[in-house]
Amino acid sequence: MRLVLGEKGIPHELVRENPWEKRDEFIDMNPAGETPVIVEVETKAVLIGSQPIVEYFEETTEKAPMLDGNARARAEVRRLVQFIDERLYGDVVAPLMHERMMKRLVSRQAPDTGALRQAMRVGNNYIDYLDYLLDNRRWLAGSSLSLADFTAAAHLSVIDYLGALDWRGHQQTKDWYSVMKSRPCFRPLLGERMENIAPPAHYDKVDF
Amino acid sequence: MRLVLGEKGIPHELVRENPWEKRDEFIDMNPAGETPVIVEVETKAVLIGSQPIVEYFEETTEKAPMLDGNARARAEVRRLVQFIDERLYGDVVAPLMHERMMKRLVSRQAPDTGALRQAMRVGNNYIDYLDYLLDNRRWLAGSSLSLADFTAAAHLSVIDYLGALDWRGHQQTKDWYSVMKSRPCFRPLLGERMENIAPPAHYDKVDF
Repeated sequence: MRLVLGEKGIPHELVRENPWEKRDEFIDMNPAGETPVIVEVETKAVLIGSQPIVEYFEETTEKAPMLDGNARARAEVRRLVQFIDERLYGDVVAPLMHERMMKRLVSRQAPDTGALRQAMRVGNNYIDYLDYLLDNRRWLAGSSLSLADFTAAAHLSVIDYLGALDWRGHQQTKDWYSVMKSRPCFRPLLGERMENIAPPAHYDKVDF
Repeated sequence: MRLVLGEKGIPHELVRENPWEKRDEFIDMNPAGETPVIVEVETKAVLIGSQPIVEYFEETTEKAPMLDGNARARAEVRRLVQFIDERLYGDVVAPLMHERMMKRLVSRQAPDTGALRQAMRVGNNYIDYLDYLLDNRRWLAGSSLSLADFTAAAHLSVIDYLGALDWRGHQQTKDWYSVMKSRPCFRPLLGERMENIAPPAHYDKVDF
């Protein structure tokens, strides 16, 4: 979401929300209790969920199209976004965050090393699939840079931050990720740090 | 998906796929291994996933708009669709199908009555939320019939088929569902039966 706002040059102020706190005011805004939520300053209108928000700004701004091409090309972008946001997230990012972040910050338990190994093993298969796509296409969804690239790069950055990415054998995805990292919209995110969890030394470097 | 194809009058032939069989040919078509998948007869082009498919037909057909209104109205439709497809599905429909269908047809176990009760209790909360929306709006997402209505009606029909819907205290949603059921696109679906699992007597009746 933040990468898309950055690419499109939409001014915004970040407000931190910890969804696991289930604040009443936040649930009133979004019954699903999830981020991202955008509140328009002037109208107080609320926009909810990364896919609806991206489609909204895609319809209302010209700059940095995220769903370029014809209807079929857009269907491929949307397929990949859903695949990454649901499957890669559910199988890899969510378990890694649970073991490495939530257990440390919220429940103060040690991570389950078996669960970590499993998430990294499955993550490797997903990156094989990205390698395969990039063997055949300029960008993940086809000939245009699209929401699929920003979505995948965002999730990979979380996996990489948590030290769970082994780039060996993934030259195609590594080259593509280096290009994504060097975009101006990516720089502010790479400069941020989680509380008490340091990323590996290569995390914010464009050459890694 | 089938309700939308029916509303838009898009001719199609149904091909049964049991995703849990993980057929190689199906995984080759859709690496996520999930239905729905549409193959265009003439071009052999493959469209994957209900949200990308609906957006595709929304962009390429005029009839029966599913995302009517302005960008903000569309954001609300997409928010509700995601909420229903992910949360209502994950919290209610998936556990019910697991307990009542998958355990019977695939693993031949008895359902866990605690899990069933929990799914029905949570399902009741979701229908309270639909009641609340319909107290304030003509249709679920606003003044126009939209994809949110078809998505919710499809999931409710599965819950109802599995005998897990208690309509008492839900007059608004009941009236709305009766209207949805009476649409021609809904009739063929209400006539179908799962193997070895009969729905309650009221399941396919418009007055229930």
